[in-house]
Amino acid sequence: MHQRRTGRRTFLQGVAGAAAALPLVSANATAAASDLTINDAIRIILKDVPNAPFRNTVDTIKSGDPTRKLTGIVTTFLATYEVIKKAGELGANFIITHEPTFYNHRDEIAWLGSDAVYGAKKRLLEQKGIVVWRFHDYWHAVRPDGIMTGVLKKLGWEQAGKDNVFTVPQASLRELALSLKQKFGSASVRFVGNPNQPCRKIGLSPGAYGGQPQITMLSRQSIDVLVCGEIAEWETSEYVRDAVAAGMAKGLIVIGHVPSEEPGMEYLVEWLTPRLPGVKIAHVPAGSPFNYV
Amino acid sequence: MHQRRTGRRTFLQGVAGAAAALPLVSANATAAASDLTINDAIRIILKDVPNAPFRNTVDTIKSGDPTRKLTGIVTTFLATYEVIKKAGELGANFIITHEPTFYNHRDEIAWLGSDAVYGAKKRLLEQKGIVVWRFHDYWHAVRPDGIMTGVLKKLGWEQAGKDNVFTVPQASLRELALSLKQKFGSASVRFVGNPNQPCRKIGLSPGAYGGQPQITMLSRQSIDVLVCGEIAEWETSEYVRDAVAAGMAKGLIVIGHVPSEEPGMEYLVEWLTPRLPGVKIAHVPAGSPFNYV
Repeated sequence: MHQRRTGRRTFLQGVAGAAAALPLVSANATAAASDLTINDAIRIILKDVPNAPFRNTVDTIKSGDPTRKLTGIVTTFLATYEVIKKAGELGANFIITHEPTFYNHRDEIAWLGSDAVYGAKKRLLEQKGIVVWRFHDYWHAVRPDGIMTGVLKKLGWEQAGKDNVFTVPQASLRELALSLKQKFGSASVRFVGNPNQPCRKIGLSPGAYGGQPQITMLSRQSIDVLVCGEIAEWETSEYVRDAVAAGMAKGLIVIGHVPSEEPGMEYLVEWLTPRLPGVKIAHVPAGSPFNYV
Repeated sequence: MHQRRTGRRTFLQGVAGAAAALPLVSANATAAASDLTINDAIRIILKDVPNAPFRNTVDTIKSGDPTRKLTGIVTTFLATYEVIKKAGELGANFIITHEPTFYNHRDEIAWLGSDAVYGAKKRLLEQKGIVVWRFHDYWHAVRPDGIMTGVLKKLGWEQAGKDNVFTVPQASLRELALSLKQKFGSASVRFVGNPNQPCRKIGLSPGAYGGQPQITMLSRQSIDVLVCGEIAEWETSEYVRDAVAAGMAKGLIVIGHVPSEEPGMEYLVEWLTPRLPGVKIAHVPAGSPFNYV
């Protein structure tokens, strides 16, 4: 909720011209920017992604006409119906989303057929004239990984380690889970393990990286705890449960997929701003959809 | 926790001979049963599974020698390290598990290599001489679906509908989530949607059936809410979030994978008992591994 408000306010103030105080919005407005098409912006972005464009990628245009003039960019974890409405209110016609638009990894739509939700979202995108482009594989391919950079900024861990392993002041597993819950702005965080287990060396894997890679991190790295976004509940959590039962000091903290990667899409605004001077760019957080009882 | 205690107590009392008061343990002890091998028991079970044995199935022996004499059966959601220890304490050498033993759907082990947790679990199984057999595809193939039968008994919904759709007294989405949390014994339940949305017609899908089938249920059936075990957080939850944002009265309740299917493995004891007279059979719940902050 907090993140959602911040994101919207940042853009609106930018639109109103108070850009000097807003690090997330370019202050270098130039006439040149208004001549860019959305395709131009994509070409400029891909110049700084190693080996782009990729032959096999989910990072395709999901909706709209990218030959149109660019009016502004919204970055987000996921182009939800609400995020699309906000982009329209903000006058932005280009949404850069990390996750799929149509409820499956490859954004396949044949199976959705005449589904009412898919239809409503498609109509909204057409009414607003908004292009949605996925920026998942490319953002993870930037070195260092764009999502990870944003997450480390959010956590203040830029100097705490490298790759996926970080060393932090010792805390119990429960204390660490609580601290990460606050830093990521999650409504609820799950953990597996002994709540009192000391944690100092942390494996960090935002998003849903998959059971085998998550378990391999826990297995091969000498880490106390793996912090990740999402798991399959017959995989990583069961591995850690067995590890603890067998007497090993291992823990798992599950942040939630959205909060674990949203900071990476917030950071994308900062990364894009010098590359697209004069273009209005803002982060509109998707936010978590979950309530808890 | 409650279920875990119940399961253990049931078996221990059965072992102690107080079987008459214990509906989950066979009261028909016969000498014949002691002559059964584990393979014999599997053959007897598969006689009542339509079209069994299947050519392609994950329901294979995961550990141990099924030609050994059967000493007792433990049913469980997942053969965790703790469940294996308990089966050993109870003198049972045959665990029937719904979910995988080695942290991936097909129980592939090559990737685990010299992993310490896999090694510890394998050693424990060998020390105890326990056979683990998965009973996932077969139990779902019994008509009516064995997991669903157990879940409906747990919920008291046997007369509330058929297949996957049930009609219950009207409650708000939040009230329904709370009520299901209590009935399933979950520590925490997530939901997506307007907490005040009236719910009466419910789609029920225990376990992790997959985004496309879950979304298709919500799309094609005139249900108010889908109740499921586990989701991928870029699929079903995002579909429901968009549905609500587009003005549709839809909800999603996510129980957790373990609590949503454990009642089906508890019910398996009742199903097995007349088929294997004289065999000691008990449910040992895996329980949920999660703590919450």
